[in-house]
Amino acid sequence: MPVAAKISDSVGKSSWIRKMFEEGLRLKAQFGEENVFDFSLGNPDLSPPVEFTDTLKALIEKNERGAHGYMPNAGFDGVREAIAARVSKEQGVDLQGKHVITSCGAAGALNVIFKTILNPGDEVIVPRPYFVEYGTYIDNHRGLIVLADTNPDFSLNIGNIRAALNERTRAVLINSPNNPTGRVYSEDDIKALGALVKEHMESTGRIIYLVSDEPYREIVYDGIRVSSILKHCTQAIVVTSYSKTLSVAGERIGYIAVHPECVEADVLLSGLILSTRILGFVNAPALMQRAVARLTGVSVNVNIYKKRRDLLMEGLKFAGYDFVKPEGAFYIFCKSPIPDDVAFVAHLQKFNVLTVPGSGFGGAGYFRIAYCVSENVIQRAVPKFKEALEALRS
Amino acid sequence: MPVAAKISDSVGKSSWIRKMFEEGLRLKAQFGEENVFDFSLGNPDLSPPVEFTDTLKALIEKNERGAHGYMPNAGFDGVREAIAARVSKEQGVDLQGKHVITSCGAAGALNVIFKTILNPGDEVIVPRPYFVEYGTYIDNHRGLIVLADTNPDFSLNIGNIRAALNERTRAVLINSPNNPTGRVYSEDDIKALGALVKEHMESTGRIIYLVSDEPYREIVYDGIRVSSILKHCTQAIVVTSYSKTLSVAGERIGYIAVHPECVEADVLLSGLILSTRILGFVNAPALMQRAVARLTGVSVNVNIYKKRRDLLMEGLKFAGYDFVKPEGAFYIFCKSPIPDDVAFVAHLQKFNVLTVPGSGFGGAGYFRIAYCVSENVIQRAVPKFKEALEALRS
Repeated sequence: MPVAAKISDSVGKSSWIRKMFEEGLRLKAQFGEENVFDFSLGNPDLSPPVEFTDTLKALIEKNERGAHGYMPNAGFDGVREAIAARVSKEQGVDLQGKHVITSCGAAGALNVIFKTILNPGDEVIVPRPYFVEYGTYIDNHRGLIVLADTNPDFSLNIGNIRAALNERTRAVLINSPNNPTGRVYSEDDIKALGALVKEHMESTGRIIYLVSDEPYREIVYDGIRVSSILKHCTQAIVVTSYSKTLSVAGERIGYIAVHPECVEADVLLSGLILSTRILGFVNAPALMQRAVARLTGVSVNVNIYKKRRDLLMEGLKFAGYDFVKPEGAFYIFCKSPIPDDVAFVAHLQKFNVLTVPGSGFGGAGYFRIAYCVSENVIQRAVPKFKEALEALRS
Repeated sequence: MPVAAKISDSVGKSSWIRKMFEEGLRLKAQFGEENVFDFSLGNPDLSPPVEFTDTLKALIEKNERGAHGYMPNAGFDGVREAIAARVSKEQGVDLQGKHVITSCGAAGALNVIFKTILNPGDEVIVPRPYFVEYGTYIDNHRGLIVLADTNPDFSLNIGNIRAALNERTRAVLINSPNNPTGRVYSEDDIKALGALVKEHMESTGRIIYLVSDEPYREIVYDGIRVSSILKHCTQAIVVTSYSKTLSVAGERIGYIAVHPECVEADVLLSGLILSTRILGFVNAPALMQRAVARLTGVSVNVNIYKKRRDLLMEGLKFAGYDFVKPEGAFYIFCKSPIPDDVAFVAHLQKFNVLTVPGSGFGGAGYFRIAYCVSENVIQRAVPKFKEALEALRS
């Protein structure tokens, strides 16, 4: 076999999201871009803020010596300090530069974390539905994913997480605002989760972590605030990327922030730096590090996403679909009108509407609509959603 | 324990190269940059060519829609095609865009390859001395490194590689021009290696690969040419980065090129793309992809490195050191005047001269001098090298 057995298995299964993304490229080539309604990938369509482009220009103009060269694996010192200041303000807990490690996006960061903390067979609890790549990131480093169902409205079910904890648990991984559901976990639930982690460590004497993947933190609506994880859990590790906030998903830039009071934080940080190096990331891309350090507080215009969400919600209601109102991110996790969500997504595809089956997120019976597309696409897609539903009933 | 047992072990050992690099930063802060002679890290000190900066400026000015967003995990189609054209010319074998996958540098590329091809316990043969991170890259994906000594002049010893081949072999990994020795493997040896791979596949019925890590391909002296791997082995996978050629080591941009006639090349390529995604690289940084695609044939001025090499060789000879003349890269792998190379490197450090022990490359009894420093540093360091040697004898 030309590839490892495990890879051979996975290539066949591939990612639903990526499969639909690539199907979209194909359909667009066939029918013309304007005739395909592609809600498959969370690929921000908004251009990066003008401050991003201006900053890149300024940095290149400046052309500092060593600006594109190696730096310590954790990143440029100044960049780490700037990010630490940002996180301190955002989370309400004081961090220094040494508590921050720049990363190749959140996906790189999560691999670095799991490489660092997981012994073979260690378990990571993830609320379901969930971003399904988490399973591969954990498996890469010989850990096991353990799913804990959320409530019907996709809020955290603390009882289910408690029930999943055991002697092999190494981490709980949450994602809020959530992909695929758009749910933002409440402060009370985060508090309860922090207490649960503490209680479990005390009762087992084992070190566990609360890993919080927060790339959508700034994409929230209706005055919702994303609770601080660091304030409620000293064993918390925050992971994020600038992919969504700055619309730069292809640039692979993010960071890991470790709670300063984490048990043996220095050992954990050394491990994370080592893993950054040996997994082959070496360091986060240099130019992008220096750019994001200067862009604290800058983000795309979230109101644009809000308008789209509202437009899409209205359209879906009008068309007769059932869903929970998303509070953040740019996804609606919609109930499939027929039990088989994969079949329904295939059905939608006949109307040139691309979405992703909920099964791709451990959420069978649902499908995900990513609304990082123009209002015009949403407006023109609504009749298609309606037709698709009517076609089922006729 | 806050980190996995394996990570805990490795943090203590850490990388010699990185240790010396960070020691260098400390000494420079203490004694002033001009009083520390840092030959520890292969961090190109030359500025990137002006074409690189100009290209970045032009790309940012152009500000194309989606330029910073997600693209297929293998990279932008146009970039892959441009690289394929470059590799075809360089290697004398025709590749298409689909045979190229952009990567986060060569370190990222190697992790992607090993993740893709290694089953647990599979062996990878590496000529010694070698870039020691190879061991961790292989271990990350549950493979085993098997070392095959080179000849005393650091040329390939085909007999040793043949002896190391067995039923568990999955790949032979070579690096030419070599880090740490500066050796460029001869065309005859590459041919013999290609024949060996073919013969082993025929006799065992197992698929194996010749992986060639070539980041220093364009940094060669005295009219030396680096032999084509693809021409001599259909099972070859070429890996490289632009770190050295363009002096952009911090930007993490490189690629993987697969021989079109590789057994089941399509399956291998799908596996490599999958691994790129699930290891968390997702894709090589977008802006840098588009930049390097436009910079075919552009490189730093290699004559500058040649002058330094000549100056350093002359100085070391004058000071009384023994070494094999390097043909490429920017390292001299010098014989340690005392058997214990670690002790000798520590001794040199007292003279504010930073090098890396050969033990850090599986080459005990040697030490590596990275001459990507200015001629002035070399000139002022020569007396220090001399003093250090004399101090040993007094």
